Amino acid sequence: MNSPTSQLLDGFLVQCQQRVNQSLHRQLEGDFTSVILRDAMAHACLDGGKRIRPVLVYGSVQAVGGDLDWADNAACAVELMHSYSLVHDDLPAMDDDDLRRGKPSLHKAFDEATAILAGDALQSLAFQLLAEPVAAINSDTQLKMVQILAAGAGFAGMAGGQSLDCEASGQQLDLTSLETLHRSKTGALIKASVQLGALCCPQLQDTEMIALQDYAEIIGLAFQVQDDILDVTGDTETLGKPQGSDKELDKATYVSLLGLEAARSKAAELSDVALESLSSFPASADPLRELAAYIVNRIN
Amino acid sequence: MNSPTSQLLDGFLVQCQQRVNQSLHRQLEGDFTSVILRDAMAHACLDGGKRIRPVLVYGSVQAVGGDLDWADNAACAVELMHSYSLVHDDLPAMDDDDLRRGKPSLHKAFDEATAILAGDALQSLAFQLLAEPVAAINSDTQLKMVQILAAGAGFAGMAGGQSLDCEASGQQLDLTSLETLHRSKTGALIKASVQLGALCCPQLQDTEMIALQDYAEIIGLAFQVQDDILDVTGDTETLGKPQGSDKELDKATYVSLLGLEAARSKAAELSDVALESLSSFPASADPLRELAAYIVNRIN
Repeated sequence: MNSPTSQLLDGFLVQCQQRVNQSLHRQLEGDFTSVILRDAMAHACLDGGKRIRPVLVYGSVQAVGGDLDWADNAACAVELMHSYSLVHDDLPAMDDDDLRRGKPSLHKAFDEATAILAGDALQSLAFQLLAEPVAAINSDTQLKMVQILAAGAGFAGMAGGQSLDCEASGQQLDLTSLETLHRSKTGALIKASVQLGALCCPQLQDTEMIALQDYAEIIGLAFQVQDDILDVTGDTETLGKPQGSDKELDKATYVSLLGLEAARSKAAELSDVALESLSSFPASADPLRELAAYIVNRIN
Repeated sequence: MNSPTSQLLDGFLVQCQQRVNQSLHRQLEGDFTSVILRDAMAHACLDGGKRIRPVLVYGSVQAVGGDLDWADNAACAVELMHSYSLVHDDLPAMDDDDLRRGKPSLHKAFDEATAILAGDALQSLAFQLLAEPVAAINSDTQLKMVQILAAGAGFAGMAGGQSLDCEASGQQLDLTSLETLHRSKTGALIKASVQLGALCCPQLQDTEMIALQDYAEIIGLAFQVQDDILDVTGDTETLGKPQGSDKELDKATYVSLLGLEAARSKAAELSDVALESLSSFPASADPLRELAAYIVNRIN
Protein backbone atom coordinates (compact mmCIF):
# COMPACT_ATOMS: atom_id res chain seq x y z
CA MET A 1 0.00 0.00 0.00
CA ASN A 2 1.94 3.03 -1.24
CA SER A 3 -0.90 5.54 -1.14
CA PRO A 4 -1.03 8.06 1.71
CA THR A 5 -2.84 6.70 4.77
CA SER A 6 -3.14 7.65 8.44
CA GLN A 7 -1.75 5.49 11.22
CA LEU A 8 -5.25 4.38 12.23
CA LEU A 9 -6.23 3.39 8.70
CA ASP A 10 -2.86 1.80 8.06
CA GLY A 11 -3.26 -0.45 11.07
CA PHE A 12 -6.82 -1.34 10.11
CA LEU A 13 -5.89 -2.08 6.48
CA VAL A 14 -3.04 -4.36 7.54
CA GLN A 15 -5.26 -6.16 10.05
CA CYS A 16 -8.01 -6.71 7.45
CA GLN A 17 -5.59 -7.75 4.76
CA GLN A 18 -3.99 -10.32 7.06
CA ARG A 19 -7.39 -11.69 8.01
CA VAL A 20 -8.65 -12.04 4.46
CA ASN A 21 -5.35 -13.42 3.19
CA GLN A 22 -5.48 -16.11 5.88
CA SER A 23 -9.04 -16.98 4.93
CA LEU A 24 -8.17 -17.12 1.23
CA HIS A 25 -5.19 -19.38 1.89
CA ARG A 26 -7.39 -21.68 3.97
CA GLN A 27 -9.90 -21.95 1.13
CA LEU A 28 -7.22 -23.06 -1.29
CA GLU A 29 -5.64 -25.72 0.90
CA GLY A 30 -6.37 -29.45 0.80
CA ASP A 31 -7.14 -31.78 -2.05
CA PHE A 32 -8.34 -30.27 -5.28
CA THR A 33 -9.90 -32.24 -8.12
CA SER A 34 -7.71 -30.32 -10.55
CA VAL A 35 -4.34 -29.03 -9.31
CA ILE A 36 -4.11 -26.68 -12.28
CA LEU A 37 -7.46 -25.15 -11.38
CA ARG A 38 -6.34 -24.74 -7.77
CA ASP A 39 -3.12 -23.03 -8.83
CA ALA A 40 -5.03 -20.75 -11.16
CA MET A 41 -7.49 -19.79 -8.42
CA ALA A 42 -4.56 -19.08 -6.12
CA HIS A 43 -2.87 -16.93 -8.77
CA ALA A 44 -6.08 -14.96 -9.11
CA CYS A 45 -6.71 -14.22 -5.48
CA LEU A 46 -3.59 -14.64 -3.33
CA ASP A 47 -0.67 -12.26 -2.93
CA GLY A 48 -1.98 -9.03 -4.22
CA GLY A 49 -4.74 -6.51 -4.37
CA LYS A 50 -5.69 -3.80 -1.95
CA ARG A 51 -8.55 -5.87 -0.49
CA ILE A 52 -10.77 -2.79 -0.42
CA ARG A 53 -13.98 -4.84 -0.41
CA PRO A 54 -12.98 -7.01 2.56
CA VAL A 55 -11.83 -3.83 4.35
CA LEU A 56 -15.33 -2.43 3.76
CA VAL A 57 -16.89 -5.60 5.17
CA TYR A 58 -14.74 -5.41 8.30
CA GLY A 59 -15.11 -1.63 8.57
CA SER A 60 -18.89 -1.97 8.46
CA VAL A 61 -19.21 -4.73 11.05
CA GLN A 62 -16.97 -2.71 13.37
CA ALA A 63 -18.90 0.50 12.69
CA VAL A 64 -22.12 -1.07 14.00
CA GLY A 65 -20.44 -2.58 17.06
CA GLY A 66 -19.78 -6.09 15.80
CA ASP A 67 -16.74 -8.31 16.05
CA LEU A 68 -14.37 -8.70 13.09
CA ASP A 69 -14.40 -12.50 13.63
CA TRP A 70 -18.06 -12.62 12.62
CA ALA A 71 -17.23 -11.11 9.23
CA ASP A 72 -14.31 -13.30 8.12
CA ASN A 73 -16.37 -15.45 5.75
CA ALA A 74 -18.20 -12.48 4.25
CA ALA A 75 -14.93 -10.60 3.76
CA CYS A 76 -13.37 -13.58 2.02
CA ALA A 77 -16.47 -14.13 -0.10
CA VAL A 78 -16.50 -10.60 -1.53
CA GLU A 79 -12.80 -10.84 -2.36
CA LEU A 80 -13.33 -14.18 -4.13
CA MET A 81 -16.12 -12.55 -6.11
CA HIS A 82 -13.99 -9.54 -6.97
CA SER A 83 -11.08 -11.78 -7.99
CA TYR A 84 -13.27 -13.80 -10.33
CA SER A 85 -14.54 -10.63 -11.98
CA LEU A 86 -10.99 -9.39 -12.62
CA VAL A 87 -10.02 -12.71 -14.19
CA HIS A 88 -12.97 -12.66 -16.59
CA ASP A 89 -12.67 -8.92 -17.33
CA ASP A 90 -9.03 -9.43 -18.36
CA LEU A 91 -9.88 -12.12 -20.94
CA PRO A 92 -9.07 -11.39 -24.60
CA ALA A 93 -12.80 -11.29 -25.46
CA MET A 94 -13.32 -8.60 -22.81
CA ASP A 95 -10.68 -5.99 -21.86
CA ASP A 96 -7.76 -8.10 -23.12
CA ASP A 97 -5.37 -7.07 -20.34
CA ASP A 98 -2.02 -8.83 -20.03
CA LEU A 99 -1.14 -7.39 -16.64
CA ARG A 100 -2.99 -7.49 -13.33
CA ARG A 101 -1.71 -6.54 -9.89
CA GLY A 102 1.79 -6.35 -11.39
CA LYS A 103 1.69 -9.97 -12.57
CA PRO A 104 0.63 -11.60 -15.84
CA SER A 105 -3.16 -11.79 -15.93
CA LEU A 106 -4.51 -15.28 -15.41
CA HIS A 107 -5.08 -16.25 -19.05
CA LYS A 108 -1.48 -15.16 -19.74
CA ALA A 109 -0.02 -17.11 -16.81
CA PHE A 110 -2.16 -20.18 -17.65
CA ASP A 111 -4.52 -20.23 -20.63
CA GLU A 112 -7.96 -18.91 -21.52
CA ALA A 113 -9.88 -22.06 -20.67
CA THR A 114 -8.28 -22.25 -17.24
CA ALA A 115 -8.96 -18.56 -16.65
CA ILE A 116 -12.64 -18.97 -17.50
CA LEU A 117 -12.95 -22.00 -15.21
CA ALA A 118 -10.97 -20.47 -12.36
CA GLY A 119 -13.25 -17.42 -12.45
CA ASP A 120 -16.29 -19.70 -12.46
CA ALA A 121 -14.98 -21.71 -9.52
CA LEU A 122 -14.06 -18.58 -7.55
CA GLN A 123 -17.65 -17.38 -7.88
CA SER A 124 -19.00 -20.73 -6.64
CA LEU A 125 -16.55 -20.70 -3.75
CA ALA A 126 -17.72 -17.25 -2.69
CA PHE A 127 -21.25 -18.56 -2.22
CA GLN A 128 -20.11 -21.79 -0.62
CA LEU A 129 -18.21 -19.85 2.01
CA LEU A 130 -20.94 -17.27 2.61
CA ALA A 131 -23.43 -20.08 3.27
CA GLU A 132 -21.22 -21.73 5.91
CA PRO A 133 -22.94 -21.38 9.29
CA VAL A 134 -21.51 -18.57 11.45
CA ALA A 135 -22.57 -18.81 15.10
CA ALA A 136 -23.14 -15.08 15.58
CA ILE A 137 -25.41 -14.74 12.54
CA ASN A 138 -28.83 -16.36 12.27
CA SER A 139 -29.65 -18.40 9.20
CA ASP A 140 -32.37 -16.03 7.95
CA THR A 141 -29.78 -13.26 7.86
CA GLN A 142 -27.19 -15.47 6.20
CA LEU A 143 -29.67 -16.37 3.47
CA LYS A 144 -30.30 -12.67 2.97
CA MET A 145 -26.55 -12.16 2.68
CA VAL A 146 -26.34 -14.81 -0.05
CA GLN A 147 -29.10 -12.99 -1.92
CA ILE A 148 -27.34 -9.64 -1.55
CA LEU A 149 -24.05 -11.01 -2.84
CA ALA A 150 -25.78 -12.77 -5.73
CA ALA A 151 -27.70 -9.64 -6.72
CA GLY A 152 -24.56 -7.53 -6.45
CA ALA A 153 -22.66 -9.94 -8.67
CA GLY A 154 -25.33 -10.80 -11.22
CA PHE A 155 -27.30 -9.24 -14.05
CA ALA A 156 -28.46 -6.28 -11.94
CA GLY A 157 -24.95 -5.74 -10.55
CA MET A 158 -21.41 -6.47 -11.60
CA ALA A 159 -22.09 -8.71 -14.62
CA GLY A 160 -24.80 -6.34 -15.88
CA GLY A 161 -22.42 -3.40 -15.54
CA GLN A 162 -19.63 -5.20 -17.32
CA SER A 163 -22.05 -5.98 -20.12
CA LEU A 164 -22.96 -2.28 -20.39
CA ASP A 165 -19.23 -1.53 -20.43
CA CYS A 166 -18.68 -3.90 -23.35
CA GLU A 167 -21.63 -2.38 -25.21
CA ALA A 168 -20.29 1.13 -24.58
CA SER A 169 -16.85 0.46 -26.04
CA GLY A 170 -16.16 3.09 -28.67
CA GLN A 171 -19.40 4.95 -27.86
CA GLN A 172 -19.43 8.32 -26.17
CA LEU A 173 -21.60 7.84 -23.07
CA ASP A 174 -23.01 10.84 -21.25
CA LEU A 175 -22.51 11.29 -17.52
CA THR A 176 -25.83 9.68 -16.56
CA SER A 177 -25.09 6.53 -18.58
CA LEU A 178 -21.57 6.41 -17.19
CA GLU A 179 -22.91 6.55 -13.64
CA THR A 180 -25.47 3.81 -14.37
CA LEU A 181 -22.66 1.68 -15.73
CA HIS A 182 -20.41 2.15 -12.72
CA ARG A 183 -23.18 1.85 -10.15
CA SER A 184 -23.62 -1.70 -11.35
CA LYS A 185 -20.13 -2.62 -12.55
CA THR A 186 -18.18 -1.64 -9.44
CA GLY A 187 -20.72 0.05 -7.17
CA ALA A 188 -22.95 -2.98 -6.63
CA LEU A 189 -20.21 -5.16 -5.12
CA ILE A 190 -18.90 -2.28 -3.01
CA LYS A 191 -22.41 -1.73 -1.67
CA ALA A 192 -22.87 -5.45 -1.10
CA SER A 193 -19.60 -5.52 0.87
CA VAL A 194 -20.85 -2.82 3.24
CA GLN A 195 -24.27 -4.47 3.56
CA LEU A 196 -22.76 -7.87 4.29
CA GLY A 197 -20.43 -6.45 6.92
CA ALA A 198 -23.31 -4.69 8.65
CA LEU A 199 -25.51 -7.80 8.56
CA CYS A 200 -22.79 -9.82 10.31
CA CYS A 201 -23.72 -7.87 13.47
CA PRO A 202 -27.01 -9.08 15.02
CA GLN A 203 -27.50 -5.72 16.78
CA LEU A 204 -27.66 -3.84 13.47
CA GLN A 205 -30.33 -1.10 13.42
CA ASP A 206 -32.30 -0.18 10.30
CA THR A 207 -31.13 3.44 10.47
CA GLU A 208 -27.51 2.27 10.57
CA MET A 209 -28.07 0.10 7.51
CA ILE A 210 -29.60 3.01 5.58
CA ALA A 211 -26.70 5.32 6.46
CA LEU A 212 -24.13 2.66 5.52
CA GLN A 213 -25.85 2.05 2.19
CA ASP A 214 -25.65 5.77 1.41
CA TYR A 215 -21.99 5.73 2.36
CA ALA A 216 -21.38 2.70 0.15
CA GLU A 217 -23.08 4.18 -2.90
CA ILE A 218 -21.09 7.36 -2.65
CA ILE A 219 -17.69 5.80 -2.11
CA GLY A 220 -18.47 3.38 -4.93
CA LEU A 221 -18.73 6.33 -7.30
CA ALA A 222 -15.73 8.06 -5.71
CA PHE A 223 -13.70 4.91 -6.21
CA GLN A 224 -14.50 4.85 -9.91
CA VAL A 225 -13.81 8.55 -10.43
CA GLN A 226 -10.40 8.07 -8.81
CA ASP A 227 -9.78 4.97 -10.96
CA ASP A 228 -10.41 7.06 -14.06
CA ILE A 229 -8.07 9.78 -12.75
CA LEU A 230 -5.33 7.24 -12.04
CA ASP A 231 -5.65 5.79 -15.52
CA VAL A 232 -4.53 9.21 -16.79
CA THR A 233 -2.13 10.35 -14.06
CA GLY A 234 -0.70 7.08 -12.73
CA ASP A 235 2.18 5.07 -14.09
CA THR A 236 2.00 1.43 -15.10
CA GLU A 237 4.39 0.24 -12.39
CA THR A 238 2.51 1.85 -9.51
CA LEU A 239 -0.88 0.85 -10.90
CA GLY A 240 0.14 -2.74 -11.54
CA LYS A 241 -1.81 -2.53 -14.80
CA PRO A 242 -1.27 -0.61 -18.03
CA GLN A 243 -1.69 3.14 -17.64
CA GLY A 244 -3.80 4.84 -20.32
CA SER A 245 -5.80 1.73 -21.19
CA ASP A 246 -9.16 3.56 -21.01
CA LYS A 247 -8.03 6.07 -23.62
CA GLU A 248 -6.58 3.34 -25.77
CA LEU A 249 -9.95 1.55 -25.72
CA ASP A 250 -11.68 4.89 -26.34
CA LYS A 251 -13.77 4.41 -23.19
CA ALA A 252 -15.86 7.21 -21.72
CA THR A 253 -14.50 8.08 -18.27
CA TYR A 254 -15.14 10.79 -15.68
CA VAL A 255 -11.92 12.42 -16.90
CA SER A 256 -12.90 12.32 -20.57
CA LEU A 257 -16.36 13.74 -19.76
CA LEU A 258 -15.51 16.26 -17.03
CA GLY A 259 -11.81 17.02 -17.55
CA LEU A 260 -9.11 16.15 -15.03
CA GLU A 261 -9.62 19.02 -12.60
CA ALA A 262 -13.40 18.71 -12.41
CA ALA A 263 -13.02 14.95 -11.93
CA ARG A 264 -10.67 15.62 -9.02
CA SER A 265 -13.17 18.06 -7.47
CA LYS A 266 -15.95 15.54 -7.91
CA ALA A 267 -13.94 12.83 -6.16
CA ALA A 268 -13.17 15.14 -3.22
CA GLU A 269 -16.80 16.24 -3.01
CA LEU A 270 -18.05 12.63 -2.97
CA SER A 271 -15.58 11.82 -0.23
CA ASP A 272 -17.04 14.66 1.89
CA VAL A 273 -20.62 13.49 1.30
CA ALA A 274 -19.59 9.96 2.30
CA LEU A 275 -18.26 11.34 5.59
CA GLU A 276 -21.52 13.15 6.25
CA SER A 277 -23.50 9.94 5.83
CA LEU A 278 -21.53 8.51 8.78
CA SER A 279 -22.12 11.54 11.04
CA SER A 280 -24.26 9.67 13.57
CA PHE A 281 -21.77 6.81 14.00
CA PRO A 282 -19.34 6.56 16.94
CA ALA A 283 -15.55 6.30 16.70
CA SER A 284 -15.84 2.66 15.68
CA ALA A 285 -16.67 3.98 12.20
CA ASP A 286 -13.37 5.86 11.92
CA PRO A 287 -11.79 3.32 9.58
CA LEU A 288 -14.74 3.77 7.20
CA ARG A 289 -14.38 7.56 7.53
CA GLU A 290 -10.69 7.46 6.74
CA LEU A 291 -11.31 5.00 3.93
CA ALA A 292 -13.54 7.58 2.24
CA ALA A 293 -10.57 9.95 2.12
CA TYR A 294 -8.11 7.22 1.20
CA ILE A 295 -10.18 6.12 -1.79
CA VAL A 296 -9.84 9.50 -3.47
CA ASN A 297 -6.21 10.06 -2.45
CA ARG A 298 -4.81 6.65 -3.37
CA ILE A 299 -2.21 6.42 -6.10
CA ASN A 300 -2.88 2.82 -7.09
CA MET B 1 -38.60 -35.41 -26.16
CA ASN B 2 -38.18 -38.07 -28.88
CA SER B 3 -36.64 -40.77 -26.72
CA PRO B 4 -38.80 -43.73 -25.61
CA THR B 5 -40.65 -43.00 -22.38
CA SER B 6 -43.58 -44.52 -20.49
CA GLN B 7 -46.86 -42.72 -20.03
CA LEU B 8 -46.09 -42.09 -16.36
CA LEU B 9 -42.65 -40.66 -17.05
CA ASP B 10 -43.92 -38.70 -20.04
CA GLY B 11 -46.51 -36.97 -17.89
CA PHE B 12 -43.99 -36.28 -15.15
CA LEU B 13 -41.41 -34.91 -17.58
CA VAL B 14 -43.93 -32.57 -19.19
CA GLN B 15 -45.14 -31.38 -15.79
CA CYS B 16 -41.58 -30.69 -14.57
CA GLN B 17 -40.55 -29.04 -17.80
CA GLN B 18 -43.58 -26.73 -17.68
CA ARG B 19 -42.81 -25.81 -14.09
CA VAL B 20 -39.16 -25.05 -14.66
CA ASN B 21 -39.82 -23.20 -17.90
CA GLN B 22 -42.31 -20.98 -16.09
CA SER B 23 -39.79 -20.29 -13.33
CA LEU B 24 -37.04 -19.51 -15.84
CA HIS B 25 -39.30 -17.12 -17.76
CA ARG B 26 -40.21 -15.37 -14.50
CA GLN B 27 -36.53 -14.89 -13.67
CA LEU B 28 -35.87 -13.19 -16.97
CA GLU B 29 -38.79 -10.77 -16.86
CA GLY B 30 -38.68 -7.16 -15.72
CA ASP B 31 -36.04 -4.48 -16.07
CA PHE B 32 -32.53 -5.59 -16.82
CA THR B 33 -29.46 -3.35 -16.54
CA SER B 34 -28.29 -4.67 -19.90
CA VAL B 35 -30.91 -5.83 -22.41
CA ILE B 36 -28.26 -7.67 -24.40
CA LEU B 37 -27.24 -9.61 -21.32
CA ARG B 38 -30.87 -10.46 -20.61
CA ASP B 39 -31.41 -11.69 -24.16
CA ALA B 40 -28.24 -13.76 -23.98
CA MET B 41 -29.29 -15.33 -20.68
CA ALA B 42 -32.68 -16.13 -22.22
CA HIS B 43 -31.04 -17.69 -25.29
CA ALA B 44 -28.97 -19.86 -22.97
CA CYS B 45 -31.73 -21.22 -20.79
CA LEU B 46 -35.17 -20.83 -22.39
CA ASP B 47 -36.78 -22.98 -25.06
CA GLY B 48 -34.71 -26.09 -25.07
CA GLY B 49 -32.99 -28.78 -23.13
CA LYS B 50 -34.36 -31.91 -21.55
CA ARG B 51 -34.38 -30.34 -18.07
CA ILE B 52 -33.06 -33.59 -16.60
CA ARG B 53 -31.65 -31.87 -13.51
CA PRO B 54 -34.91 -30.09 -12.60
CA VAL B 55 -36.73 -33.38 -13.22
CA LEU B 56 -34.37 -34.98 -10.69
CA VAL B 57 -35.09 -32.22 -8.18
CA TYR B 58 -38.84 -32.70 -8.56
CA GLY B 59 -38.54 -36.48 -8.69
CA SER B 60 -36.61 -36.48 -5.43
CA VAL B 61 -38.93 -34.18 -3.49
CA GLN B 62 -41.86 -36.33 -4.61
CA ALA B 63 -40.03 -39.56 -3.76
CA VAL B 64 -39.70 -38.50 -0.11
CA GLY B 65 -43.31 -37.33 0.15
CA GLY B 66 -42.85 -33.61 -0.50
CA ASP B 67 -44.79 -31.20 -2.66
CA LEU B 68 -43.48 -30.15 -6.08
CA ASP B 69 -44.25 -26.51 -5.20
CA TRP B 70 -41.57 -26.55 -2.52
CA ALA B 71 -38.92 -27.45 -5.08
CA ASP B 72 -39.61 -24.86 -7.81
CA ASN B 73 -36.71 -22.58 -6.86
CA ALA B 74 -34.25 -25.43 -6.45
CA ALA B 75 -35.29 -26.91 -9.81
CA CYS B 76 -34.84 -23.58 -11.53
CA ALA B 77 -31.50 -22.98 -9.78
CA VAL B 78 -29.95 -26.24 -10.99
CA GLU B 79 -31.11 -25.55 -14.55
CA LEU B 80 -29.60 -22.04 -14.43
CA MET B 81 -26.34 -23.58 -13.22
CA HIS B 82 -26.41 -26.23 -15.93
CA SER B 83 -27.17 -23.61 -18.60
CA TYR B 84 -24.24 -21.45 -17.51
CA SER B 85 -21.90 -24.45 -17.71
CA LEU B 86 -23.01 -25.25 -21.26
CA VAL B 87 -22.43 -21.65 -22.35
CA HIS B 88 -18.89 -21.60 -20.97
CA ASP B 89 -18.07 -25.13 -22.15
CA ASP B 90 -19.03 -24.15 -25.71
CA LEU B 91 -16.61 -21.18 -25.81
CA PRO B 92 -13.79 -21.29 -28.38
CA ALA B 93 -11.19 -21.57 -25.59
CA MET B 94 -12.99 -24.67 -24.28
CA ASP B 95 -14.87 -27.15 -26.50
CA ASP B 96 -15.43 -24.62 -29.31
CA ASP B 97 -18.92 -25.86 -30.18
CA ASP B 98 -21.01 -23.87 -32.66
CA LEU B 99 -24.26 -25.72 -32.02
CA ARG B 100 -26.20 -26.30 -28.81
CA ARG B 101 -29.72 -27.63 -28.38
CA GLY B 102 -30.13 -27.29 -32.15
CA LYS B 103 -29.40 -23.55 -32.10
CA PRO B 104 -26.19 -21.54 -32.51
CA SER B 105 -24.25 -21.68 -29.26
CA LEU B 106 -24.34 -18.44 -27.30
CA HIS B 107 -21.02 -16.99 -28.42
CA LYS B 108 -22.10 -17.63 -32.02
CA ALA B 109 -25.52 -16.03 -31.57
CA PHE B 110 -24.02 -13.07 -29.67
CA ASP B 111 -20.28 -12.77 -29.05
CA GLU B 112 -17.70 -14.25 -26.71
CA ALA B 113 -17.74 -11.44 -24.15
CA THR B 114 -21.52 -11.64 -23.87
CA ALA B 115 -21.36 -15.42 -23.56
CA ILE B 116 -18.83 -15.22 -20.72
CA LEU B 117 -20.92 -12.62 -18.90
CA ALA B 118 -24.23 -14.39 -19.47
CA GLY B 119 -22.74 -17.56 -18.01
CA ASP B 120 -21.44 -15.61 -15.03
CA ALA B 121 -24.80 -13.96 -14.45
CA LEU B 122 -26.68 -17.26 -14.77
CA GLN B 123 -24.51 -18.70 -12.02
CA SER B 124 -25.19 -15.72 -9.74
CA LEU B 125 -28.91 -15.97 -10.47
CA ALA B 126 -28.94 -19.63 -9.48
CA PHE B 127 -27.70 -18.73 -6.00
CA GLN B 128 -29.94 -15.69 -5.72
CA LEU B 129 -32.96 -17.84 -6.39
CA LEU B 130 -31.90 -20.71 -4.14
CA ALA B 131 -31.48 -18.27 -1.24
CA GLU B 132 -35.01 -16.86 -1.62
CA PRO B 133 -37.04 -17.87 1.42
CA VAL B 134 -39.37 -20.83 0.81
CA ALA B 135 -42.02 -21.24 3.52
CA ALA B 136 -41.80 -25.04 3.68
CA ILE B 137 -38.01 -25.10 4.12
CA ASN B 138 -36.24 -23.78 7.19
CA SER B 139 -33.34 -21.38 6.74
CA ASP B 140 -30.71 -23.75 8.11
CA THR B 141 -31.67 -26.24 5.41
CA GLN B 142 -31.73 -23.58 2.72
CA LEU B 143 -28.22 -22.49 3.67
CA LYS B 144 -27.14 -26.11 3.41
CA MET B 145 -28.73 -26.23 -0.05
CA VAL B 146 -26.70 -23.20 -1.13
CA GLN B 147 -23.56 -24.96 0.06
CA ILE B 148 -24.46 -28.14 -1.78
CA LEU B 149 -25.09 -26.32 -5.04
CA ALA B 150 -21.89 -24.29 -4.67
CA ALA B 151 -19.81 -27.39 -3.95
CA GLY B 152 -21.41 -29.24 -6.87
CA ALA B 153 -20.65 -26.35 -9.21
CA GLY B 154 -17.20 -25.36 -8.00
CA PHE B 155 -13.64 -26.64 -7.89
CA ALA B 156 -14.64 -29.97 -6.34
CA GLY B 157 -17.52 -30.39 -8.76
CA MET B 158 -18.45 -29.20 -12.22
CA ALA B 159 -15.69 -26.60 -12.73
CA GLY B 160 -13.05 -28.98 -11.36
CA GLY B 161 -14.27 -31.71 -13.70
CA GLN B 162 -14.28 -29.43 -16.71
CA SER B 163 -10.72 -28.44 -15.84
CA LEU B 164 -9.72 -32.13 -15.75
CA ASP B 165 -11.47 -32.52 -19.10
CA CYS B 166 -9.43 -29.69 -20.63
CA GLU B 167 -6.21 -31.16 -19.21
CA ALA B 168 -7.12 -34.58 -20.60
CA SER B 169 -7.64 -33.39 -24.16
CA GLY B 170 -5.47 -35.52 -26.43
CA GLN B 171 -4.39 -37.77 -23.54
CA GLN B 172 -5.53 -41.35 -23.20
CA LEU B 173 -7.18 -41.55 -19.76
CA ASP B 174 -7.79 -44.89 -18.13
CA LEU B 175 -11.22 -45.88 -16.85
CA THR B 176 -10.55 -44.72 -13.27
CA SER B 177 -9.44 -41.26 -14.39
CA LEU B 178 -12.40 -41.02 -16.75
CA GLU B 179 -14.79 -41.83 -13.90
CA THR B 180 -13.13 -39.26 -11.62
CA LEU B 181 -13.54 -36.70 -14.38
CA HIS B 182 -17.22 -37.42 -14.94
CA ARG B 183 -18.08 -37.79 -11.26
CA SER B 184 -17.15 -34.14 -10.92
CA LYS B 185 -17.91 -32.73 -14.38
CA THR B 186 -21.49 -34.01 -14.71
CA GLY B 187 -22.03 -36.24 -11.68
CA ALA B 188 -21.66 -33.53 -9.04
CA LEU B 189 -24.52 -31.38 -10.34
CA ILE B 190 -26.74 -34.41 -10.89
CA LYS B 191 -26.08 -35.48 -7.31
CA ALA B 192 -26.69 -31.95 -6.06
CA SER B 193 -30.02 -31.89 -7.93
CA VAL B 194 -31.21 -35.01 -6.12
CA GLN B 195 -29.94 -33.75 -2.76
CA LEU B 196 -31.61 -30.37 -3.20
CA GLY B 197 -34.91 -31.96 -4.16
CA ALA B 198 -34.81 -34.22 -1.11
CA LEU B 199 -33.92 -31.34 1.23
CA CYS B 200 -36.96 -29.39 0.02
CA CYS B 201 -39.06 -31.85 2.06
CA PRO B 202 -38.87 -31.20 5.83
CA GLN B 203 -39.84 -34.82 6.58
CA LEU B 204 -36.75 -36.18 4.86
CA GLN B 205 -35.13 -39.11 6.70
CA ASP B 206 -31.36 -39.71 6.74
CA THR B 207 -31.77 -43.20 5.28
CA GLU B 208 -33.77 -41.75 2.38
CA MET B 209 -31.05 -39.19 1.71
CA ILE B 210 -28.36 -41.88 1.66
CA ALA B 211 -30.35 -44.03 -0.77
CA LEU B 212 -31.06 -41.05 -3.03
CA GLN B 213 -27.39 -40.09 -3.07
CA ASP B 214 -26.48 -43.61 -4.17
CA TYR B 215 -29.12 -43.39 -6.87
CA ALA B 216 -27.77 -40.03 -8.01
CA GLU B 217 -24.16 -41.15 -8.22
CA ILE B 218 -25.10 -44.17 -10.30
CA ILE B 219 -27.39 -42.41 -12.74
CA GLY B 220 -24.76 -39.66 -13.07
CA LEU B 221 -22.35 -42.22 -14.42
CA ALA B 222 -25.05 -43.90 -16.52
CA PHE B 223 -25.92 -40.54 -18.03
CA GLN B 224 -22.33 -39.98 -19.10
CA VAL B 225 -21.90 -43.48 -20.52
CA GLN B 226 -25.04 -42.95 -22.61
CA ASP B 227 -23.75 -39.53 -23.70
CA ASP B 228 -20.58 -41.17 -24.98
CA ILE B 229 -22.64 -43.83 -26.78
CA LEU B 230 -24.84 -41.19 -28.42
CA ASP B 231 -21.81 -39.24 -29.59
CA VAL B 232 -20.97 -42.33 -31.70
CA THR B 233 -24.40 -43.65 -32.62
CA GLY B 234 -26.56 -40.51 -32.72
CA ASP B 235 -27.00 -38.06 -35.55
CA THR B 236 -26.38 -34.33 -35.31
CA GLU B 237 -30.00 -33.36 -35.90
CA THR B 238 -31.42 -35.56 -33.12
CA LEU B 239 -28.61 -34.68 -30.72
CA GLY B 240 -28.89 -30.94 -31.34
CA LYS B 241 -25.10 -30.82 -31.27
CA PRO B 242 -22.41 -32.17 -33.59
CA GLN B 243 -22.19 -35.97 -33.62
CA GLY B 244 -18.67 -37.41 -33.34
CA SER B 245 -17.20 -34.39 -31.55
CA ASP B 246 -15.53 -36.51 -28.85
CA LYS B 247 -13.61 -38.49 -31.45
CA GLU B 248 -12.73 -35.34 -33.33
CA LEU B 249 -11.25 -33.89 -30.12
CA ASP B 250 -9.55 -37.24 -29.44
CA LYS B 251 -11.29 -37.45 -26.05
CA ALA B 252 -11.26 -40.61 -23.98
CA THR B 253 -14.84 -41.89 -23.62
CA TYR B 254 -16.50 -44.99 -22.26
CA VAL B 255 -16.91 -46.13 -25.86
CA SER B 256 -13.27 -45.56 -26.75
CA LEU B 257 -12.11 -47.39 -23.60
CA LEU B 258 -14.68 -50.21 -23.41
CA GLY B 259 -15.97 -50.54 -26.95
CA LEU B 260 -19.58 -49.83 -27.96
CA GLU B 261 -21.16 -53.09 -26.81
CA ALA B 262 -19.47 -53.13 -23.39
CA ALA B 263 -20.42 -49.48 -22.91
CA ARG B 264 -24.06 -50.39 -23.64
CA SER B 265 -23.91 -53.22 -21.12
CA LYS B 266 -22.38 -50.93 -18.52
CA ALA B 267 -25.15 -48.37 -19.02
CA ALA B 268 -27.85 -51.02 -18.63
CA GLU B 269 -26.13 -52.45 -15.56
CA LEU B 270 -25.87 -49.01 -13.91
CA SER B 271 -29.53 -48.42 -14.59
CA ASP B 272 -30.38 -51.67 -12.74
CA VAL B 273 -28.19 -50.74 -9.76
CA ALA B 274 -29.89 -47.34 -9.62
CA LEU B 275 -33.26 -49.07 -9.41
CA GLU B 276 -32.05 -51.24 -6.54
CA SER B 277 -31.00 -48.20 -4.54
CA LEU B 278 -34.64 -47.08 -4.60
CA SER B 279 -36.04 -50.45 -3.48
CA SER B 280 -37.32 -49.18 -0.13
CA PHE B 281 -39.19 -46.21 -1.63
CA PRO B 282 -42.97 -46.20 -2.27
CA ALA B 283 -44.65 -45.57 -5.61
CA SER B 284 -43.94 -41.84 -5.28
CA ALA B 285 -40.41 -42.69 -6.46
CA ASP B 286 -41.65 -44.23 -9.71
CA PRO B 287 -40.64 -41.21 -11.83
CA LEU B 288 -37.07 -41.56 -10.50
CA ARG B 289 -37.21 -45.30 -11.23
CA GLU B 290 -38.36 -44.76 -14.78
CA LEU B 291 -35.86 -41.97 -15.23
CA ALA B 292 -33.04 -44.44 -14.51
CA ALA B 293 -34.22 -46.50 -17.49
CA TYR B 294 -34.90 -43.44 -19.64
CA ILE B 295 -31.37 -42.09 -19.13
CA VAL B 296 -29.79 -45.14 -20.75
CA ASN B 297 -32.43 -45.51 -23.47
CA ARG B 298 -32.62 -41.89 -24.58
CA ILE B 299 -31.58 -41.03 -28.11
CA ASN B 300 -30.69 -37.38 -27.45
